[in-house]
Amino acid sequence: METRSERAETTLAAIVGAALDMAVTEGLESISIGEVAKRLDLSKSGVFSRVGSREQLQVAVLLEFDKRFVQTVFVPAMSEPRGLQRLQAVMRRWLAWASDVDRHKTCLYTAGAFEYDDREGPVREHLLDGVLRWRATLRRTVLQAMEAGHLRADLDAEQMVFEMDAIFTILLHDARFLRDPRAGERAERAWQRLLNDCRAAP
Amino acid sequence: METRSERAETTLAAIVGAALDMAVTEGLESISIGEVAKRLDLSKSGVFSRVGSREQLQVAVLLEFDKRFVQTVFVPAMSEPRGLQRLQAVMRRWLAWASDVDRHKTCLYTAGAFEYDDREGPVREHLLDGVLRWRATLRRTVLQAMEAGHLRADLDAEQMVFEMDAIFTILLHDARFLRDPRAGERAERAWQRLLNDCRAAP
Repeated sequence: METRSERAETTLAAIVGAALDMAVTEGLESISIGEVAKRLDLSKSGVFSRVGSREQLQVAVLLEFDKRFVQTVFVPAMSEPRGLQRLQAVMRRWLAWASDVDRHKTCLYTAGAFEYDDREGPVREHLLDGVLRWRATLRRTVLQAMEAGHLRADLDAEQMVFEMDAIFTILLHDARFLRDPRAGERAERAWQRLLNDCRAAP
Repeated sequence: METRSERAETTLAAIVGAALDMAVTEGLESISIGEVAKRLDLSKSGVFSRVGSREQLQVAVLLEFDKRFVQTVFVPAMSEPRGLQRLQAVMRRWLAWASDVDRHKTCLYTAGAFEYDDREGPVREHLLDGVLRWRATLRRTVLQAMEAGHLRADLDAEQMVFEMDAIFTILLHDARFLRDPRAGERAERAWQRLLNDCRAAP
């Protein structure tokens, strides 16, 4: 039998899950306490008492999204040996995440960037932190590949990361909005061109 | 003195202008007839009678945005001679449009792509048409540069256009959301690398 606190946790997880579903299809701004309550057949005040506020629920949704991203992209890639192998694993898994439109629907960070560019507050700050943290991870991975002699020693690591994110972002755009089945292949070709230009001479 | 129909036109232009202001800061979905009426001190029914529906107002906003984009980017670039010169002019003006965050705030098409990837209806269709029409213009410009012998004859023009849009989209993201002052310079470097890889051997 579930204890009272286990039940509370189950309810909170269901609330965050329902709000995440709304966010990946209609955007973080679409999250509404009333709609979540309706979907779960709970009272509005019951949802409020568990999440605190709409903004706190939006941040909880981002934390849940983070967890899935870390498990699917970050952890498996970081288990690869440092250098080119890890860099390629990161990019392969990151692009696969963008292509897998059925499962993940969208990237809340990229979609959120265009939704919150002019809005201030905790949701924007959390999005910004997430993007900068991920870019720092990518930069570190590029620097390790440079140290290992796999990438050119004179490379501008930030520039490479900027271009990696360009490929990810347009892939998301073309796969999700244009619904172009060739988007994954185009992104892969762009990545190979970037990698070739950054590789150390053999 | 203004005639009655001139006054009606002035009012319609003011309605579309107010709605465009809302769209570039908070997204196309933020457009509300009630809010537009409030901003212009008109009655809600007065706004409704002029625009027909919220969706028609959203499409009118996109048409107004198109007009500005065509005047600022398309027409001046298309006045350059065909080939590399025109291609470079297109990209320079397009990237400048993304960098000029104070004036244009955002690109309604790119932001809209992430807002309407899962929504159906006339707004999505108009956005989709606009993106595909612009990509066709870019592809034609690339093909002309290939025919002129400025770009490699074996180039995949669609791939090049995909990568041009990648640079534009991440520039918008970094300039608008990250508010990174170096974004324009990074985009320019990415464009030069793309152009170098696509250039015909001298």
